[in-house]
Amino acid sequence: MTTAAQRFATEGFGPENLPYASFSPTGARPRLGVRLGDRAISLGELATGVEAKGGPQLAATARTAADAPDLDALLAAGHTAWQPLRAWLQEVVTTEGLEEVVEAASTPVSDIAVHMPFTVADYVDYYASEHHASNIGRMFRPDQEPLLPNWKHLPVGYHGRAGTVIPSGTDVPRPKGLRPEPSGTPSFGPSRRLDIEAELGFVVGGSAPQGEVSVARAGAEHLFGVVLFNDWSARDIQGFEYVPLGPYLGKSFASSISLWVVPFAALAQARVEPPSREHELADYLDDSVDGPWGLDITLEVVLDGESLSHPPYRTMYWTAPQMVAHMSVNGASLRPGDFFGSGTVSGTEVDERGSFMELSWGGKEPLTLANGHEQAFLEDGQTVTLRGTAPGANGSVIDFGDCVGTIVPASGAAG
Amino acid sequence: MTTAAQRFATEGFGPENLPYASFSPTGARPRLGVRLGDRAISLGELATGVEAKGGPQLAATARTAADAPDLDALLAAGHTAWQPLRAWLQEVVTTEGLEEVVEAASTPVSDIAVHMPFTVADYVDYYASEHHASNIGRMFRPDQEPLLPNWKHLPVGYHGRAGTVIPSGTDVPRPKGLRPEPSGTPSFGPSRRLDIEAELGFVVGGSAPQGEVSVARAGAEHLFGVVLFNDWSARDIQGFEYVPLGPYLGKSFASSISLWVVPFAALAQARVEPPSREHELADYLDDSVDGPWGLDITLEVVLDGESLSHPPYRTMYWTAPQMVAHMSVNGASLRPGDFFGSGTVSGTEVDERGSFMELSWGGKEPLTLANGHEQAFLEDGQTVTLRGTAPGANGSVIDFGDCVGTIVPASGAAG
Repeated sequence: MTTAAQRFATEGFGPENLPYASFSPTGARPRLGVRLGDRAISLGELATGVEAKGGPQLAATARTAADAPDLDALLAAGHTAWQPLRAWLQEVVTTEGLEEVVEAASTPVSDIAVHMPFTVADYVDYYASEHHASNIGRMFRPDQEPLLPNWKHLPVGYHGRAGTVIPSGTDVPRPKGLRPEPSGTPSFGPSRRLDIEAELGFVVGGSAPQGEVSVARAGAEHLFGVVLFNDWSARDIQGFEYVPLGPYLGKSFASSISLWVVPFAALAQARVEPPSREHELADYLDDSVDGPWGLDITLEVVLDGESLSHPPYRTMYWTAPQMVAHMSVNGASLRPGDFFGSGTVSGTEVDERGSFMELSWGGKEPLTLANGHEQAFLEDGQTVTLRGTAPGANGSVIDFGDCVGTIVPASGAAG
Repeated sequence: MTTAAQRFATEGFGPENLPYASFSPTGARPRLGVRLGDRAISLGELATGVEAKGGPQLAATARTAADAPDLDALLAAGHTAWQPLRAWLQEVVTTEGLEEVVEAASTPVSDIAVHMPFTVADYVDYYASEHHASNIGRMFRPDQEPLLPNWKHLPVGYHGRAGTVIPSGTDVPRPKGLRPEPSGTPSFGPSRRLDIEAELGFVVGGSAPQGEVSVARAGAEHLFGVVLFNDWSARDIQGFEYVPLGPYLGKSFASSISLWVVPFAALAQARVEPPSREHELADYLDDSVDGPWGLDITLEVVLDGESLSHPPYRTMYWTAPQMVAHMSVNGASLRPGDFFGSGTVSGTEVDERGSFMELSWGGKEPLTLANGHEQAFLEDGQTVTLRGTAPGANGSVIDFGDCVGTIVPASGAAG
């Protein structure tokens, strides 16, 4: 007798990970699934199969959500459904004699289509890397201190466009807009400075109608899962538009997420102390409770197969529970499906930077690729892949899968 | 024999207006309705009643949406459903012999609860008043030109929090957050500079998955309706947080909309030329096609029953179709339920300003109310009402109803 984990698990996608997605076997309707190795397992079919076999019982709070086409119902059900579902899944895939049931409910990931895993309610993007914020400050505001006075007192963030958060694999047309020109009169056309932002994205579940969610509650009750996140950015459009109300069209054309949502609970071994803070923080931002809340996740930025950098998430100044507490401290409600990005992850070293803006220092120091080609920003036809790994339980590796997007030429004239 | 319009219409809510809402007669479930005078008419019941009476037939594209609890289905159905529905409604309420059917489907507005009329998809707020942007620039950046270099080249805007757009009548707890202090170290507590922003809000219908919606298509196919909009603002929180990524918690706690969505089609007589533009605009912002697109709507700001100002919407530099064209020119999709605010409406005169920030000039020139009380910003327990009227067809007046909110004290410590 063997277990499903023994039969199917591969490095990165063992029983310690079990990320969720919405997938379809070829031609079939979308269903909520979990990944074990190279298999996508339908949760609804698995629950039915385990029931028929007299295996472990799935808690009623999670049973309905398991039959849904995506994560929306599970996010709405709240953390009291997530914990028993994950415990049940781990039990099922590590119990001898259930591997046939798991196999029957599963499809090789090579034979599936994967969809948006959840409906994005509100989308916020933070700016939580000190090194990224300092680099951008030096380039955009060379006559000032690189970090603005508010930066170490609160996690700076802003709302983005929920409707243009797209699943990995979707092509990204080069956006058009008003680009600054030396004359002072902008020109309209395709962005000439198309960039990436290598980030993590956090998926929020449960509800907080009155806001004011504490750091401890954020971590225990609202942080459902984590994805890789590429917040594509048109630096020329952004540079012209962004004062005084912040980025708008320079960001809102597309933001890609990886398809498999890694449970926050799978990252318990990745939790590390965040950098020490320069100022004493307001009580609501004190994240020493139930911590540490930093995350030792290593990202990788890959351009057409060539690895460009390894941004280290453990260097982020602000932690995810702080971002939730900040988002809601003014009374703003949380809804299931709220989603926030960490902001670009950049370390201290050049090969730890998470954007071309930083890698090419605003275009002044173009990159030389392995094939000898020099470039500062993205060209049509190029593909960017983000990858990420973290330490998991039992010495395992937690793999985030790929977050991929290919730049396609700008469309014709506006209709 | 009389018509329903003759029996029920009152000034502001005649057959030329017919705004939509989601309402419940006491204790009943929500339904989509239209307002005629002091009556809320259930669209589903009206369609059934008119069918039974052999009256005018409602087009099939609109019939299902009429039975929905709110505007979501109608917004998704698109403009080919809106036009026949409005024409049918106008025919029904002005046809002799149908007034009993209308009455049977209706409830006095004094006996109903009114809900959010639609589900907000993405919410954007613009900054389209030259006088408001100049006033704010003078106060926030006294050492610079009041208007930034981009302002007359594009409609400056940013995304806000869709989940905290709330219906008129909902109390607004004073938000808490980090307030700037002379020491440079911010303090945490309730906002001391709580303000309003008197705006119009535009409700978008139909879909544009690839974006790039022209001004002409925006006006003809996507601008479903208009509401009054109060974008409550905590100026101290906003002032500390807003560089470089724009307003966030200073705005995201609450934004109130009026309950009755005035059809954009009801504002044909209100359309006027916008102010002449200083620069030649990019082609996609050329709003001379099918125009004029300015709107002669007069707002009123009322504090505890005292009229403070009358902001004139006809002075807005950027028009609603320009805002839609801008929002989507980078390829960003439009979804049914997308919503955008115009930005604070302020005219050239003191009694045309749409915020306390401007009325009290950043707090330096407090207002003296009729009862002798002096104040610069909002106090707990105070109620702000926005009102608005526009010229309608046949010499009528289009009334927007009230957009009301009362400030309640900040909650206790964060949980």
